[in-house]
Amino acid sequence: MRAIAPASSANLGPGFDTLALALALHVEVTVEDADAFTIVTEGEGSDLPADAGHLAARVVREVTGHDRYAITVRSDVPVARGLGSSASLALAAAAAAGAADPLAVAARVDGHPENAGASFAGGFVTATTVEGVPIVNPLPLDDALSFVVLVPDRALPTAEARAALPTEVAHRDAAFNLGRTGLVIAAMGDHRVWMREAMQDRLHQPYRAALFPESTALLAGLVDAGALSACWSGAGPSLLAVCTHDTAAAVAAAGDDLLRSHGVAGRALRLEADRNGLVVE
Amino acid sequence: MRAIAPASSANLGPGFDTLALALALHVEVTVEDADAFTIVTEGEGSDLPADAGHLAARVVREVTGHDRYAITVRSDVPVARGLGSSASLALAAAAAAGAADPLAVAARVDGHPENAGASFAGGFVTATTVEGVPIVNPLPLDDALSFVVLVPDRALPTAEARAALPTEVAHRDAAFNLGRTGLVIAAMGDHRVWMREAMQDRLHQPYRAALFPESTALLAGLVDAGALSACWSGAGPSLLAVCTHDTAAAVAAAGDDLLRSHGVAGRALRLEADRNGLVVE
Repeated sequence: MRAIAPASSANLGPGFDTLALALALHVEVTVEDADAFTIVTEGEGSDLPADAGHLAARVVREVTGHDRYAITVRSDVPVARGLGSSASLALAAAAAAGAADPLAVAARVDGHPENAGASFAGGFVTATTVEGVPIVNPLPLDDALSFVVLVPDRALPTAEARAALPTEVAHRDAAFNLGRTGLVIAAMGDHRVWMREAMQDRLHQPYRAALFPESTALLAGLVDAGALSACWSGAGPSLLAVCTHDTAAAVAAAGDDLLRSHGVAGRALRLEADRNGLVVE
Repeated sequence: MRAIAPASSANLGPGFDTLALALALHVEVTVEDADAFTIVTEGEGSDLPADAGHLAARVVREVTGHDRYAITVRSDVPVARGLGSSASLALAAAAAAGAADPLAVAARVDGHPENAGASFAGGFVTATTVEGVPIVNPLPLDDALSFVVLVPDRALPTAEARAALPTEVAHRDAAFNLGRTGLVIAAMGDHRVWMREAMQDRLHQPYRAALFPESTALLAGLVDAGALSACWSGAGPSLLAVCTHDTAAAVAAAGDDLLRSHGVAGRALRLEADRNGLVVE
């Protein structure tokens, strides 16, 4: 079987471990019966070892209980950039292996439901875990929105980004993020509601900025260039700018300039939301 | 001028200081030119001193700069029960006095924008404060939903309920509330999405339970009786049960029984959402 899953951008500023958006970059996994295990990888992530330890191989083995498969992985989702590559790969691999509940497999592999949820459902989702079960719900996503992602040529492992977070936060900061999260949810459903302050956050971005010191100026530059608001994509280092179709091209061009002027190797991608989510053939 | 504003239920479980729902209980304020200040109050809150220190009088004076008015207040919003009575009264008074931005007045008087925002916009809203300005946005509210409010015959001053909150919380608890808030937002827009766990909260309800020890059993009892989920209404002591039109009557009847069996004087009100918000005539 063949399954295709989109990339995703999680958190969306204040919505830490909760909100996520599916983006039109994709990973495709094909799983075919074979006499012995083989795996071929193409595109993004093909520099990683293509062996039985590959995430796709591990997921297929977990789902089916054996590994007599020929697995092919083709991906244009950058790895370890905060674009949900592992969640989308796990989801597509689980689906291609015939998993009854590929979302549950991918959420477990990824440790959180939001990236896997967006890759599964497409569009804009909110996710949480109830009694160990990933609960993913679609939320309204305005057709007028378009997106730009700055993808630095450097990895920021999620574990490192997690370690930067404090154990405790001020109660007022927790409440602050709730209010901004509501604003982001409203604005994703109606582009006229956006304010640059919508993606202000006190739970992760301020703590992670030390891991990517240029991020603060890049985010401000994206908004100055016309983005409605901007935030870290997942645990970074990619940065997401929310735009309209009218402004996205200019923001993407400005994003390339910003990367260059701040000495950050990387590229700006203009991306639409993916509204299909997981597709299994 | 005459203005009518609905009551509201804030927080809705995890959405502390952010989410609020307008409910079909109303306060009506009439402000008419007069040679000297008079105020007449009827209904809920009419046991409070009807003088120049009354909240409606203070708001009218703040808006107009003088007090040569005859003010009439008629209310069926219980006072100090967590139903947004002060926000709705301040909103209606500001509007009846001709305020250009009655929402801003009411949010300032109340200290938070969510109750005032729901009373202003009607329906289900998310609110936050950006640079001192209340930002209120409507969110989808499923027509299938109906509500039951348990209103104990005891006041719980908001200041006391605030004092019960900790200064710091675990980062994971802040993230937990974000996830549950997204679930509540999704479920308010689609009743089929509700889970009883949606209104789980780690920022206020567990800390406030000591102020109203019976609340935990009452909330569980409401859900056992058929409510989709249940939570504190604002800072309490009222409790809100989310129902459908099919279940609300049974939940209201069970609510009366629960109050009696737990020795809590009070009443269960079956209420619809108010979708009109502030009405000025």
